[in-house]
Amino acid sequence: MTTAIILAGGESSRLRPLGDKSLQRFMGRSLLRRHLDILTEAGVTDVVIVTGPHNDAAIHEECAEVAATYVMQPEPQGMGDAVALALEVVRPGEPVYLTQAHDLLAPGFHRALLALARQRPDAVIIAAKRVESYFPGGYLLPAPGAQPAPDAPFDVNGVVEKPGAGNEPSDWVTLVAHLLPHAGDLASALADAVTGSPGDRYERALSALMRRAPALAMPHAGATASLKYPWHMLDIMDLILRSIDAPQIDLTARIAEGAQVRGPVIVAAGTRLFPGAAVIGPAYIGPGTIVGNNALVRESMTGARCIVGYGTEVARSWLGDDVWFHTNYVGDAVIDSNVSFGSGTVTGNLRLDEGIIKVTVKGERVSTWRNKLGQIVGSGTRVGINASLMPGVVIGRNAFVGPGVVLGADVPDGKRVTLRQVLDWADNTVIPRPEDRDAFRGKL
Amino acid sequence: MTTAIILAGGESSRLRPLGDKSLQRFMGRSLLRRHLDILTEAGVTDVVIVTGPHNDAAIHEECAEVAATYVMQPEPQGMGDAVALALEVVRPGEPVYLTQAHDLLAPGFHRALLALARQRPDAVIIAAKRVESYFPGGYLLPAPGAQPAPDAPFDVNGVVEKPGAGNEPSDWVTLVAHLLPHAGDLASALADAVTGSPGDRYERALSALMRRAPALAMPHAGATASLKYPWHMLDIMDLILRSIDAPQIDLTARIAEGAQVRGPVIVAAGTRLFPGAAVIGPAYIGPGTIVGNNALVRESMTGARCIVGYGTEVARSWLGDDVWFHTNYVGDAVIDSNVSFGSGTVTGNLRLDEGIIKVTVKGERVSTWRNKLGQIVGSGTRVGINASLMPGVVIGRNAFVGPGVVLGADVPDGKRVTLRQVLDWADNTVIPRPEDRDAFRGKL
Amino acid sequence: MTTAIILAGGESSRLRPLGDKSLQRFMGRSLLRRHLDILTEAGVTDVVIVTGPHNDAAIHEECAEVAATYVMQPEPQGMGDAVALALEVVRPGEPVYLTQAHDLLAPGFHRALLALARQRPDAVIIAAKRVESYFPGGYLLPAPGAQPAPDAPFDVNGVVEKPGAGNEPSDWVTLVAHLLPHAGDLASALADAVTGSPGDRYERALSALMRRAPALAMPHAGATASLKYPWHMLDIMDLILRSIDAPQIDLTARIAEGAQVRGPVIVAAGTRLFPGAAVIGPAYIGPGTIVGNNALVRESMTGARCIVGYGTEVARSWLGDDVWFHTNYVGDAVIDSNVSFGSGTVTGNLRLDEGIIKVTVKGERVSTWRNKLGQIVGSGTRVGINASLMPGVVIGRNAFVGPGVVLGADVPDGKRVTLRQVLDWADNTVIPRPEDRDAFRGKL
Repeated sequence: MTTAIILAGGESSRLRPLGDKSLQRFMGRSLLRRHLDILTEAGVTDVVIVTGPHNDAAIHEECAEVAATYVMQPEPQGMGDAVALALEVVRPGEPVYLTQAHDLLAPGFHRALLALARQRPDAVIIAAKRVESYFPGGYLLPAPGAQPAPDAPFDVNGVVEKPGAGNEPSDWVTLVAHLLPHAGDLASALADAVTGSPGDRYERALSALMRRAPALAMPHAGATASLKYPWHMLDIMDLILRSIDAPQIDLTARIAEGAQVRGPVIVAAGTRLFPGAAVIGPAYIGPGTIVGNNALVRESMTGARCIVGYGTEVARSWLGDDVWFHTNYVGDAVIDSNVSFGSGTVTGNLRLDEGIIKVTVKGERVSTWRNKLGQIVGSGTRVGINASLMPGVVIGRNAFVGPGVVLGADVPDGKRVTLRQVLDWADNTVIPRPEDRDAFRGKL
Repeated sequence: MTTAIILAGGESSRLRPLGDKSLQRFMGRSLLRRHLDILTEAGVTDVVIVTGPHNDAAIHEECAEVAATYVMQPEPQGMGDAVALALEVVRPGEPVYLTQAHDLLAPGFHRALLALARQRPDAVIIAAKRVESYFPGGYLLPAPGAQPAPDAPFDVNGVVEKPGAGNEPSDWVTLVAHLLPHAGDLASALADAVTGSPGDRYERALSALMRRAPALAMPHAGATASLKYPWHMLDIMDLILRSIDAPQIDLTARIAEGAQVRGPVIVAAGTRLFPGAAVIGPAYIGPGTIVGNNALVRESMTGARCIVGYGTEVARSWLGDDVWFHTNYVGDAVIDSNVSFGSGTVTGNLRLDEGIIKVTVKGERVSTWRNKLGQIVGSGTRVGINASLMPGVVIGRNAFVGPGVVLGADVPDGKRVTLRQVLDWADNTVIPRPEDRDAFRGKL
Repeated sequence: MTTAIILAGGESSRLRPLGDKSLQRFMGRSLLRRHLDILTEAGVTDVVIVTGPHNDAAIHEECAEVAATYVMQPEPQGMGDAVALALEVVRPGEPVYLTQAHDLLAPGFHRALLALARQRPDAVIIAAKRVESYFPGGYLLPAPGAQPAPDAPFDVNGVVEKPGAGNEPSDWVTLVAHLLPHAGDLASALADAVTGSPGDRYERALSALMRRAPALAMPHAGATASLKYPWHMLDIMDLILRSIDAPQIDLTARIAEGAQVRGPVIVAAGTRLFPGAAVIGPAYIGPGTIVGNNALVRESMTGARCIVGYGTEVARSWLGDDVWFHTNYVGDAVIDSNVSFGSGTVTGNLRLDEGIIKVTVKGERVSTWRNKLGQIVGSGTRVGINASLMPGVVIGRNAFVGPGVVLGADVPDGKRVTLRQVLDWADNTVIPRPEDRDAFRGKL
């Protein structure tokens, strides 16, 4: 029986102010639970989850109902170390399937790869994806004579880590979905690779195995996404939203006359759509969420108990639980749980020059390769009325942004930024008369 | 025949910038007229209204069609003085019923108390209300053996004024709805009480009467409200709105296709609801008022000829006449007549810390015991576009608040506050090309 | 055969930041093309268009499909010079009809005047309009015994240029629609008038002709408009909108369920109205334009491919092509092509004192005689989110107005104005608890 090893021990530090990568929730389910469900459907029964000290308790809680073995990696020593720890609880003679919950492949792909593994019990099988431009990952070295094509597995001789642009041995990179036919062999290879940099210990062990056994690359045809930076939440959301093939409206949802649900939309239990509200698919409206009068939600996900109040548009955005909006525009934004925006507050999501938006991650400016991006807002944060949030700004957890602030800088966790205005006071010399109203009545 | 004495001579100074307490209008009728109507329905035919120099003319005008006797109290010398003046025009042998128009009791309560008085022509009868926490008012001293209960009158021996927390003789306080069986006895008792503080002269006279005659407390079961501070307008509004039991839409109202009226709503003559407008009850829409496209009014009252323009939400707010809004959010606010808000101006109605909101009244910070409160805005005031009004702010009459102001301070009557911004001017080096539009067209 | 001479060589400098007067587009057609169509329908086949160096190429391009003769006036030497140049390509014996495309008369008026000319081939015929107050134009001197009335031509003896208030010889002024029966005579009169000020050379020549030949004034009954200042765009728009007598919705337009088109509205090809959108006539929605969810357009014109996004109101405004709005209020404004407003940006269109709005034109403050006027915005300009634009402000081409700016000054072409805010940073000591949400849930 194949044992799935799910690597969930990473620190998610580049995802701040959001929490753990594997535990991010989409359509009511964490990536980790979603991944476990997919593996279960693909026939996997034995699972080892590698956690870290920072998320071990949360992952146990999240998977309380799941039969899994947990291994905690005490220090962040890289993937090789994580895999080696996991293998300590796997029978040496059995195959292992190595994946990460925050790497989204098509559910059918996992099924197909595991099916191939049953046909080729001798082979290392690794997921492959064609890239159009250079990507700093592991490039596949096709076997002599192999004809890599998107629709069939092909023989490979190894993986070349980050060869540099121009030196790529093919236009195929590997994704973290690796089937190793013999756990004991992998453990040995990892033990052999313990000397040297821990950063590529796994890759060196994998290459050693691929030199000794037949190896196949299995092309992944459709889109994939991986959660590393916070704006990747939107890519993952998109991918998951695209999987909705028909409207599913819970029987307990109350959709007022004059409200509209169009396209592939999931409306969860206890939600309410007020008159004039519209939800345009693909979209997911979480349980207990209210979409107020004349509010619009499109191509977005809300968590549980959100309030998308009167006159608010939420477009292409991900919302956690208990997010409250009221007369806002929220576009291309990632808003974690328990956040409120005051009336009139809007998200800028396009630069003046319509150029690529950068975000500061761990002190460095990182290009998002997006020209439409709103903000990343951590949980517990409040924004006052009529604030203007510039594209790509990160607002930390438990922060406060005051009314009228034009926010172009990031706000750290637990900080409060308010506006100091200079006001001029004078006598009001111009007092309109009530009778003047009539003159304007016709011209509102 | 019982003579009703209505005490309307108070100065309403804590209600500023609003006008006279008794003349505040709800659903097209002043509190005074409403009160007179209730008394008339309860069978009262003789009414004495005590006015003050500041409101005597206005009250005469307001009650022009009402048969009443007016007594003006020349100086604010307290309730005892007011009652003594009123008694000068009442026949000594008849009973008097003392009330205030700005104290809202249930209409049926007045009826019941007057009926009880006919059964017990010998007794002093005073309205009683159970309180749950200490309230600085007159506490009832139940007679020995009395079993105070909400559903029946009980014997009382007196009233203890403001006993201090912990010293209350019961958990019942008296409301100003007092039936005194003999006007002459009351006049004598007030004459006896003329020495000493004018502030409690009435209470001392009442206690003396209660020692000499049987006295009953009549419990008031439901909610009551009294208008002292401007935010009490909202309490009174709520109470009156709750009395609407079915929708009443005037035949001359024009409700466009696609507009909605839901719940107990009164729509007065000549009003117009444009497409997409919604009025959610309980609510009152005054005559000639327009609710514009996609505007929402809920749990609110508007006066006459208001314009709740496009894209405006008015929630739990009281509006005077000729109030004009356009793309605003107005929540939990009291907006007097002839006021305009520019487009994009919004009311904050919840503090950052979600705590109790305080309002400055006559120079002192007074707790409103509300965590949701917008603003109090006096008549004749204009607010520019995109202003942000903080919770609990008071804007005086004939004032002006400029565009973009974040208003955290009160604005006195006749004052103007404008924003001084520092603007940076430079060459615009980034000029988007029209053809770039196409790239964004799919991603609005 | 009558030759129409269209004077289109003016510099339009007072129209900045908009372009050439004759080329301004309304309902998909430039004023020049519209004017040519009207003349063609009135039976005119020979047309001479006088251009200037600044617009000669553009006018040729605009009229590529029209059979016309072009004459370029090399320098702006006045109307007399322009007409003299045009006459060089007209046969001397034929009548000429002198008009300007940016002067809007009723289409039927041109037809009627040309019909009259066929009945009275000997007469000079000039359009006349009754004025109610002094206007600095050419006043008609009625012939002795003439009874000027709105419904019939009357004899005139001449034109008195700008006589000064109080010295008007009648209350009729002339409009630029002049039928001269003999081109050669006009050329001679212009040659005679070449000495003296070029500014009134034409008027002097016209007066000389009127002394020698019979002259008729033909009253224009309805409204007219002339495009000189940018806010006149709104007058011309109004006049053209009023000519829509019935809704015309292109078959390719997609109007969502729950969207409304009311009154005389033209909806061009490929437009889309989303749910809750409303277009209230008279209005014109240009091809490919999108009116988003709950957006409202009334008494306005849009150009091609505009986006009136979610929650936007456009009232009494003229939009060029590719104008993008999103949650804006745009009232009484003139917005040229390729302009975007960020979400929450609104136009002030009414002064605090509700007085007449002035606009700076070529360095001078000019009264618009309007108390409702938004902004004039040149093409290629971007406005950030939550900006507040004051009434009568002119924003040049390719300019940028930053988020949160309260703009009370004009912005020159190619300039960028941004807001410098002072922000206070502190620790956020007040962190709301998720469980507090429930307390507010009932009170949104």
